[in-house]
Amino acid sequence: MAASSAFDLLITGGIVACCDEKGTAHAKGAVGIKDGRIAWVGDAEKLPADAAAAATVDAAGKLLAPGLVNAHCHLADSLFRGLVEDLELEDWLQVLWRAEGTILNEETNLLGARLGLAELALSGVTTVLDMFWFPETAAQATKKIGLRMMTGGFAFDLDGADGMPAADRLKHAEAFIERYKDDELVTPNAMVHGAYTSGTASMKAMHELAQAHGCNFHIHAAETRKENETVLAQHGARVVPLLEKLGMLGPDTLLAHAIHLDDADLKMVADSGTAVVHNPVSNLKLGSGFARVPEMLARGIPVGLGTDGAVSGNDIDMWLALRLAATMHRAVANKAGALSSKEALRMATLGSAQAMGMAAEIGSIETGKRADLMLLDLERPHAVPLFDPHSHLVYSACKGDVEDVWVGGRPVVAKGQLVNDDLGEILEQTRRLQPQVLASINGGD
Amino acid sequence: MAASSAFDLLITGGIVACCDEKGTAHAKGAVGIKDGRIAWVGDAEKLPADAAAAATVDAAGKLLAPGLVNAHCHLADSLFRGLVEDLELEDWLQVLWRAEGTILNEETNLLGARLGLAELALSGVTTVLDMFWFPETAAQATKKIGLRMMTGGFAFDLDGADGMPAADRLKHAEAFIERYKDDELVTPNAMVHGAYTSGTASMKAMHELAQAHGCNFHIHAAETRKENETVLAQHGARVVPLLEKLGMLGPDTLLAHAIHLDDADLKMVADSGTAVVHNPVSNLKLGSGFARVPEMLARGIPVGLGTDGAVSGNDIDMWLALRLAATMHRAVANKAGALSSKEALRMATLGSAQAMGMAAEIGSIETGKRADLMLLDLERPHAVPLFDPHSHLVYSACKGDVEDVWVGGRPVVAKGQLVNDDLGEILEQTRRLQPQVLASINGGD
Ligand SMILES: [Zn+2]
Ligand SMILES: [Zn+2]
Repeated sequence: MAASSAFDLLITGGIVACCDEKGTAHAKGAVGIKDGRIAWVGDAEKLPADAAAAATVDAAGKLLAPGLVNAHCHLADSLFRGLVEDLELEDWLQVLWRAEGTILNEETNLLGARLGLAELALSGVTTVLDMFWFPETAAQATKKIGLRMMTGGFAFDLDGADGMPAADRLKHAEAFIERYKDDELVTPNAMVHGAYTSGTASMKAMHELAQAHGCNFHIHAAETRKENETVLAQHGARVVPLLEKLGMLGPDTLLAHAIHLDDADLKMVADSGTAVVHNPVSNLKLGSGFARVPEMLARGIPVGLGTDGAVSGNDIDMWLALRLAATMHRAVANKAGALSSKEALRMATLGSAQAMGMAAEIGSIETGKRADLMLLDLERPHAVPLFDPHSHLVYSACKGDVEDVWVGGRPVVAKGQLVNDDLGEILEQTRRLQPQVLASINGGD
Repeated sequence: MAASSAFDLLITGGIVACCDEKGTAHAKGAVGIKDGRIAWVGDAEKLPADAAAAATVDAAGKLLAPGLVNAHCHLADSLFRGLVEDLELEDWLQVLWRAEGTILNEETNLLGARLGLAELALSGVTTVLDMFWFPETAAQATKKIGLRMMTGGFAFDLDGADGMPAADRLKHAEAFIERYKDDELVTPNAMVHGAYTSGTASMKAMHELAQAHGCNFHIHAAETRKENETVLAQHGARVVPLLEKLGMLGPDTLLAHAIHLDDADLKMVADSGTAVVHNPVSNLKLGSGFARVPEMLARGIPVGLGTDGAVSGNDIDMWLALRLAATMHRAVANKAGALSSKEALRMATLGSAQAMGMAAEIGSIETGKRADLMLLDLERPHAVPLFDPHSHLVYSACKGDVEDVWVGGRPVVAKGQLVNDDLGEILEQTRRLQPQVLASINGGD
């Protein structure tokens, strides 16, 4: 066969769960990769007889699926894992911001991003949307480890942990977009921390920046009842109506949390084509409440799934988020059919990709998409019997099952180990920083 | 030193989270084991200078904790994992019972119990309360693998999967108690499946049997609204008032689920000293609802934690149950302080032990208790930083972290592998049975 038609990599013989809209699965499937994209997918026995591959992975007895897409995270907050417990969002933020302000600089932020990315990569996440200080360090860390990332600058009118004057944030966000607009792994966006931490001028300017550059726009919205009350007192409108009034809703806007939405809010979000990222692990731990996810899906709102940061986690485990998204809304509705396992799995893959405006590129195993894949071990007591691979991903699989991960066809995790970064060194450096982190909230050590 | 004062096993140098009522932790601790019990626990540096041990485990950089106690499970249902999806309890039971009736016999039940026990052991569970057909096979499987188990016969007036006439069940339960009353690993109890599957005569007789033998009594109670309605229609009282009327509440009674309890029910449960086992994973997946756990704890009701079976799971993961128990009640109450991490951890350890009447023997690392222990790897991205070992167990640790497990000081899991049973063989046999399992609900293959 012609060299140009050969695969760079062929992963063959395993169960393939495509996680596409049709729920395609192959009991003994094969995925051929060429130039970082999926060039062929189907039953292994239907592979062209003359198919050649520079490298082949035998996936027999394993499960190949698209990498998970984590649509809301604060990676470097992993440095503060377990530091602040049993508080609600507002009080919790005050303590957290004190720690962030004391500890974070470009160096520690890079370490925190590497720590968070290591956890994501080892658990099969291949793309993450990160909102955090010093986004350049997160971009640097993700290019090193090999994961795909959406991030950028964000509006924040209070004193930020990065010491940047609020007036400089728009320019900073624009510079980030310019720097990364053609990057293969980093997709720039523009963000606002929240309607309770920025004035309307900053918010609008950042949204206009996103629009001008064709970027996705991301904001925390209606996470708590108190947030709605605060914003109502400041602006005369609750969060979603305020965003609507400011012209900030739309298909390129992604709201994080969106828990305290009334029917009118839901209609505004649906009518404008705005997307939502659901963060069940954080919402439960902080006692924020239950987002109205089944109703969002019924109204056609694109819903993705995120972990939020490790301080409201305390891990960043998309499998846990997936299991919660699949089950907790049933208990709220007292109805096992409130949400299907297929809908939940979509949130963690294609739904997140759609919410981030990246569904044409990632989120499922389909010809032409980026080869962002994970291979799961099935030689586990919780993986047998296995009747339906998509259902297995929702209700039985876990981060400990992830053996290999590829992003754009390049190995990121091999046999459960990071390929491009040194976990031992990351953990050692984090442990060395731990006493200072603890002292940061205790006012001395 | 005298040979009699030497430890059989010394586990030393790791963080020790005792999970006792005081929340004792040792940053560099040691646990000495003698004759299957904990003979010494404390800071490693305070070990008597002449302390000798037949064997020593270096736990440096690891976390030693008591094994988890799973207070409600249906082990052999692991054979049907993922078979029945997206249905509520009543409809789901109809399909499940069809599969159980077709597939289960002593041989397949033994296989299912081995599969379930393998999953529990590898995830750090050291004691399980099992309610299932053919309890002798579960007892046989647990004695092989080396876990501690509470189980026995149960009342069930409908046609059971074991083909036993309902009239024989009391005698069967009594024979089980006689056979295992002096067993080191198996503690016999007496059970009733539920007030909707047994008449009051069977229920009372089984409870009296438990009382006569000083056994714990276990029953599914008020899992769904429909169960309460059914029992009200049949008996003129909802589940908890019916049990009260029949004299079946009390300190030796353990209710599974107890979700749909009104204030009067809660008071009856509290006043009688009755215990509850909370099963959040199952309650969410089947859409059964949220048990009023914070109110139960506030009223002093002993609350344990269980996984329920793998058909309402689809795994049997106590770590997931623990995380849910610690967080979901906060979202229900919109209050991060609704339940503390300490209260949640207690449910998974000492609380379950107390609910099963075994708190003097298991559930914490304290001198004189059985040496039922697990050792967790901390060289994981989600385990660093680690500020508080008890909080780490609740919010960050997972089944994949479990390296070693001991029950009564004997190794059950070593370096992540079963010591006393063959996982590969269990999985292979289960896979061989899978086509028949699928055919059992499809009316043919
Ligand atoms: Zn967030
Ligand atoms: Zn049950």
